[in-house]
Amino acid sequence: MKALVYEGPGQKSWKDVPNPQIQESRDAIVKIDATTICGTDLHILKGDVPAVTPGRILGHEGVGTITEVGSGVSNFKVGDKVILSCVSADGSCTFCRDGLYSHCVGEEGSSGIGWIFGHLIDGTQAEYVRAPYADTSLYHLPEEVSPEHGVLLSDIFPTGFEMGVQYGQTKPGDVVAVIGAGPVGLAVIATAKLYGAAKVIAVDLDANRVEQAHKFGATHGVNSGDADWREQIMAQTDGWGVDVAVEAVGIPATFEMCTNIVRPGGNVANVGVHGKPVSLELDRLWIENINISMGLVNTNTLPMLLKLVAEGKLPAEEFISHRYPLDDILTAYDTFSRAAETDALKVILQA
Amino acid sequence: MKALVYEGPGQKSWKDVPNPQIQESRDAIVKIDATTICGTDLHILKGDVPAVTPGRILGHEGVGTITEVGSGVSNFKVGDKVILSCVSADGSCTFCRDGLYSHCVGEEGSSGIGWIFGHLIDGTQAEYVRAPYADTSLYHLPEEVSPEHGVLLSDIFPTGFEMGVQYGQTKPGDVVAVIGAGPVGLAVIATAKLYGAAKVIAVDLDANRVEQAHKFGATHGVNSGDADWREQIMAQTDGWGVDVAVEAVGIPATFEMCTNIVRPGGNVANVGVHGKPVSLELDRLWIENINISMGLVNTNTLPMLLKLVAEGKLPAEEFISHRYPLDDILTAYDTFSRAAETDALKVILQA
Repeated sequence: MKALVYEGPGQKSWKDVPNPQIQESRDAIVKIDATTICGTDLHILKGDVPAVTPGRILGHEGVGTITEVGSGVSNFKVGDKVILSCVSADGSCTFCRDGLYSHCVGEEGSSGIGWIFGHLIDGTQAEYVRAPYADTSLYHLPEEVSPEHGVLLSDIFPTGFEMGVQYGQTKPGDVVAVIGAGPVGLAVIATAKLYGAAKVIAVDLDANRVEQAHKFGATHGVNSGDADWREQIMAQTDGWGVDVAVEAVGIPATFEMCTNIVRPGGNVANVGVHGKPVSLELDRLWIENINISMGLVNTNTLPMLLKLVAEGKLPAEEFISHRYPLDDILTAYDTFSRAAETDALKVILQA
Repeated sequence: MKALVYEGPGQKSWKDVPNPQIQESRDAIVKIDATTICGTDLHILKGDVPAVTPGRILGHEGVGTITEVGSGVSNFKVGDKVILSCVSADGSCTFCRDGLYSHCVGEEGSSGIGWIFGHLIDGTQAEYVRAPYADTSLYHLPEEVSPEHGVLLSDIFPTGFEMGVQYGQTKPGDVVAVIGAGPVGLAVIATAKLYGAAKVIAVDLDANRVEQAHKFGATHGVNSGDADWREQIMAQTDGWGVDVAVEAVGIPATFEMCTNIVRPGGNVANVGVHGKPVSLELDRLWIENINISMGLVNTNTLPMLLKLVAEGKLPAEEFISHRYPLDDILTAYDTFSRAAETDALKVILQA
C-alpha cells in the first residue's frame, strides 16, 4: 500500500510500504476513507517529538471501512464504517477504568497505549491502518455523517471540547477567550456554547482567522497584534478578566497572555502542544485563585459530539478548507503548512 | 495601646500607638485575647511584600472580645468573643456573592478588602484592632473553644483545608503528598482525612518535622533530603504518582517536586506564598492531564472547621509549640523565626 512515512526531521515521503496485518486478537484493519493533517504532525516533522522515529507512518485522525478483525473483536465486523479515535485504549487498565483513556497503560508500544497512531505505531495517513483494541478505540460512523465530517471527531472536536471547554470548567454565563484561532481553537469556540458560554472571544494575530471565527460561534474577535489587545478583552468582561482563558497555540507568549487576562477564581485551560517550559508567575498568581489545566484528550465525549454533528448542531463543513485525493498528500501538507497564506483549516484527504 | 509595628525591611518594634477607632458604621473594635505569628509575617519583615509600608501593625490572626461596634453592625455586640478571619469581606461585592471572599473588592484599602489585616490596614499583633465589615468578617467563638485554639481558625486551618485539600480536589482513597510540614502543611495533613484521603505523606527536609507530622494525621513520612525521596513517595502509590501533591513551602524547587510526583489525572495544589516565578515544564506536562491550583484562602469553611475543633475532631493543641504573653512578642518572633532550632509551630501570644 501507499503511506506517508516520516523519514527524520524535515523529511517525509509518500511511498510503498507493506500492508498492515492483524497482530493481536483485538486488532482490526481499517481501509482509510478520509484522513487529515494535524498541527501535531508538523511538530513531528520538525523533530519536536523524538518518540517518533524514522520509518513511522504519520497521522492520528481518520475514518475508514473495516477489512479484517481479530478473533477478540466483538463490536465491529468487516464492512463497518468507523471513526478512529486519536487515542487508543484497552478499556481495562487502571487509567481506562477511571475514564482517563489518554493514559491507557496497555501493552501496545513502549509508552503504553493512549496516543499511539502516527507516534508509537503506524498511523492513518495511509491506505490501510492497523487499529489495536478495536472494541474500545473505534466508533461506528452513522450513515448521516460523511467520512470527512467524521474525521473531525478523531481529534479536534473532542480536544477542543474536553481540554478547552470541560477542563476550563466553563459554565453558563462565562466569558471565554480563546488564544489561537486555528482548527483546535475553533473547536473550542464551536463547543463553548454547549456549556452556556455568554461570550466567546477569538484572539489571534491573523486578522482572517479572527474574522472567520465568527462562523464557528465567536461572539467577539481581538487581534493580538493590537497594542491594546488586553484592554479589548477586558472590555468584554466586568473589568476583572475572563472566566476561562484557553491556550490553543503552544508557545510561552500565549500561555502568559492567558494568565494575564484570567479573573480571580477563573481558569486557564492549556490545549496547545508545547515544546518549551513556560514561566509561571507564582509570585503574582499564588494569590489569584486561578486554576491551570492541561492534558491530552480522552475522546470520551466523541459519541456525544458525533450526535451533535449528525444533528447539524455543530459546525463541521466550516472546518474543511481544502480537499485532496489521498495520493496527493504531499500537496496537502504544503497547503496546510502554509496556512497563513492558504487560509487552510482542516485539509481533508479522500481515498 | 501597645502594638508590633513594621518599621521597614528587617525592622519591627513593640511600641505605643494610638488606640484604633471606629471609622465606618460596619466596623467593630476588638480587644485581642490571643494572636499568633504566620510565616507570611516573616516574609513581610524581609521586605517581600512591598504593599506593607513602614508604620503598619502586623498580624492577621486573632481571637478577641468586642469593645465597640459601629451603628451598622447587627450580628455582634460589646462583650462577644470573636475569631477574626484573616480575610475581611463586605459580603456584597461581585466576588463575595460568588463565595470568593479573598477577592472582595469593597472600598477598604487600596486593593479592596480580602487579606488586609497586617497588610493594607493595621493588624492583630496589638492590644486592640479595628475590624471592618464585622458582620461578614468575624465569627462567634463558642465557649468550648479556647482563644488559642480559636486563633488557629483565623488562617491556618482554613488555608490548609481550602487551598490544599479542597483546591487539590482530594477524594476518598487518594494518596496525598504534602511538601513542607510547617504549620500550614500540617493543617493540610490534619484536614486531608475530611475528604477521605487513604494515605497522607509528609515530606520535609527536617527530620523532626517529618516525625511529628504523624501526630497530625500523616500516615507516611519522607525526608526530602534523601537521594531516593521520589522513589519513597512513588512506593506509596501504584507506581504512577500521587493523586494530590500539595506545595506548602513557597519556593521553585518544592513546586517542581510536586509536578514530578503527581500522577496523570492528578492535582497540584499550591498553598505556599511565592516570591519568584517558577518554571512550569509544559513541554513535558501538557500531555499529563494534571491540574494546578493556587489562591488565597476564602475562610468560607471556617464555621465548619470550628465545629470540628469544638468536637475535638481536629488536632489543635498539637499545633501550639510555645506560649508567650503578648508583650513578650519580640521573644516570640525570635522563637518562631528560628523554628529549625526551636521546633516552633504556632507560637501563641496571650493578652
